[in-house]
Amino acid sequence: MAPDAEDRLSRLLARRRALLGPVYRTFYERPIEIVRGEGVHLFDRDGTEYLDAYNNVPAVGHAHPRVVAAVADQAGRLNTNTRYPAEPILDYAERVLGTLGAHLDHVMFTCSGSESNDLALRIARFWTGKAGVVVTVNAYHGVTAAVAEASPSLGPAVAPGPSVRTVLPPVPTAEDAEAQGERMAAELRSAIAALEADGAGFAALLVDSIFSSDGIIPDPIGFLRPVAEAVRAAGGLLIADEVQAGFGRTGGMWGFQRHRLEPDLVTMGKPMGNGMPVAAVAGRAELLDRFGREIRYFNTFGGSSVSVAAAAAVLDVIQDEGLVENAADVGAHLRDGLETLVAGSPMLRDVRGAGLFVAADGFAPGGDPAEVASRILNGLRDRRVLVGTTGKRGEVIKIRPPLVFARADADRLLEALGEVLGTLA
Amino acid sequence: MAPDAEDRLSRLLARRRALLGPVYRTFYERPIEIVRGEGVHLFDRDGTEYLDAYNNVPAVGHAHPRVVAAVADQAGRLNTNTRYPAEPILDYAERVLGTLGAHLDHVMFTCSGSESNDLALRIARFWTGKAGVVVTVNAYHGVTAAVAEASPSLGPAVAPGPSVRTVLPPVPTAEDAEAQGERMAAELRSAIAALEADGAGFAALLVDSIFSSDGIIPDPIGFLRPVAEAVRAAGGLLIADEVQAGFGRTGGMWGFQRHRLEPDLVTMGKPMGNGMPVAAVAGRAELLDRFGREIRYFNTFGGSSVSVAAAAAVLDVIQDEGLVENAADVGAHLRDGLETLVAGSPMLRDVRGAGLFVAADGFAPGGDPAEVASRILNGLRDRRVLVGTTGKRGEVIKIRPPLVFARADADRLLEALGEVLGTLA
Repeated sequence: MAPDAEDRLSRLLARRRALLGPVYRTFYERPIEIVRGEGVHLFDRDGTEYLDAYNNVPAVGHAHPRVVAAVADQAGRLNTNTRYPAEPILDYAERVLGTLGAHLDHVMFTCSGSESNDLALRIARFWTGKAGVVVTVNAYHGVTAAVAEASPSLGPAVAPGPSVRTVLPPVPTAEDAEAQGERMAAELRSAIAALEADGAGFAALLVDSIFSSDGIIPDPIGFLRPVAEAVRAAGGLLIADEVQAGFGRTGGMWGFQRHRLEPDLVTMGKPMGNGMPVAAVAGRAELLDRFGREIRYFNTFGGSSVSVAAAAAVLDVIQDEGLVENAADVGAHLRDGLETLVAGSPMLRDVRGAGLFVAADGFAPGGDPAEVASRILNGLRDRRVLVGTTGKRGEVIKIRPPLVFARADADRLLEALGEVLGTLA
Repeated sequence: MAPDAEDRLSRLLARRRALLGPVYRTFYERPIEIVRGEGVHLFDRDGTEYLDAYNNVPAVGHAHPRVVAAVADQAGRLNTNTRYPAEPILDYAERVLGTLGAHLDHVMFTCSGSESNDLALRIARFWTGKAGVVVTVNAYHGVTAAVAEASPSLGPAVAPGPSVRTVLPPVPTAEDAEAQGERMAAELRSAIAALEADGAGFAALLVDSIFSSDGIIPDPIGFLRPVAEAVRAAGGLLIADEVQAGFGRTGGMWGFQRHRLEPDLVTMGKPMGNGMPVAAVAGRAELLDRFGREIRYFNTFGGSSVSVAAAAAVLDVIQDEGLVENAADVGAHLRDGLETLVAGSPMLRDVRGAGLFVAADGFAPGGDPAEVASRILNGLRDRRVLVGTTGKRGEVIKIRPPLVFARADADRLLEALGEVLGTLA
């Protein structure tokens, strides 16, 4: 970076620290001041271009013209709340429910994945009359008090809720699908027994079917079925957190469908409005009916006119540009390329993923895998390719680009990654 | 309504019930299908115009061209999250903190008033190490699990939190300011003692300084000072919920300033982005610093580029169009007119308010005041003037228009209200 640009960035970060406080962190050793986005490309203040292989919110691409036009048009006409009956939200509800499966027939709107998971827990606890919730050991479900205490990945400073229990997710390298599902189901039955013993009872298993913050665990397909059966047998609800996995990310429309599950509630968010704050909870009608009859719930911005216009445009683009199919195709191509790189480097291993939710682990024989992952992350950033890290210790390289990512974009990422791995060898 | 229009509305409501469930309620006996807004005017599908004296979210007016342009422009360039350092959010943070007073020096962004109140409670509980929260008896602070259990106005189906206690708000018709504040402070001290006795301890008083859902209680100015002193004396935090009162609504920039309070945390939302889902928590730096150093908190859509662009445009318009002053002026004019109507009708009484947050109570000697309020609400709706109701039993007429409401708009409302009162007499 030129000295001027470095000065500017230092001042920006100092001012940020002074106004917003330390909770506002950055991604890279050399943070980037992004000012423009287009498709899979981001541009900093100096006009330098970056390949975005990280951001899952702008799923149909940064500043997609159809979404921008829908937002601008609707904002210029009306942006109001759901107390006024309106057709567009019903058209959208019908379309999104149509993708989810016949057993999910109501949808409620919120502003964020956190609000959706919070609402889903409220509905589950109200329906069952029980408090207990089970999540995976490094789960992340959001930032409201109720979901933060069910998000162990936030670390020990956020006390786990008194009625929250954890189970280990499947082991990605295990060879036997049945064994993984049965093992997790057995752990879940123990957790449920503990909840029942201490009086909380069991309300729900809240699970993200690709285990985004547990390290990205996509396979084997179907491993969650014994787990879902254990939930049913105990009279609890299965809540599928599709905030990250949903809307085509995993090469199918919904992550739970990949595992052939029938969740009672489905939460969605991040890519739903391509950046507009719109999210939702879909569920079986009887659950939302009882909650809605007995509980007052009004979300001022949830399902507002502009949010719904953005969400509808996103569905249009996903369909018209074949983005679910693209995620499957380019994701497979990317994983193939990663396998080739892994074969030639000891610093990266265990390539996995579904669609354009792809991961591999940093590895250092006798060393710190998170340190390797960090060097890869920052090495790619210096080559203008943006990825992320995840996992318990941050050892997992997370590749999760907008769904308009092309094979050529994957090739560019692979070439840069090959260079970075070369510097680490 | 023409039979065709009535058919259409019935079908719309049936479809809404089938897709969204019963939680989605409507405002009027004859709900309105709004399709366009402009300034203080709303238009239904048939082109019929309504005067909006209800919606506080589009504070600078429906579809304000400057906000629409800012949203469209920013959406076309970039809409990303706060992990990337950016100047516009810092410029906005500086401006909004500048209006709040020197003791509030950090701000964090969320998507909704609910998320902001939820976060403020998390910060207060983390800072104090205590769980106890005090609210007023009919308070409403939002819909996440943590704030719903501190929102008694949601009714008995939402169980109050185990560490939530309530106090009575000031009595609006009381004549002695000191007595009201001291009475509430004494009640607060008892609630705190109860929280300490049962081991929860006292974290915060969460209060909306105009008591929006307790019936709108604006006066006497300063009555909350003894209450604030009781909070301090007990080592708790004062959280000002400015989600409704903030951004000029009460004829000053912030409701707490009207009462000359110095809250530790301030939450804001609804009008902040004129309908875009943007909200925030401002607070003393040391509180947000400790929380931010020890707790991971990242709000995906909170403070995203488009949200901040909308919020900045709202501040521009409030300032350039003198909307705080307008709220004070037109609010006073409106209250004067209401006093005149009340003098001539036994069905309405106790006119009160601050700025453009105005109320009066339905009244029926020997009858149901809520029934009177409902007849006024629906009578005004039939004359194309939209207001709301609030209060424990829904007996309070709530007038809370966009801040661009002019004296002529107030006159139109008063004329329609005079007619409605005439039909009730």
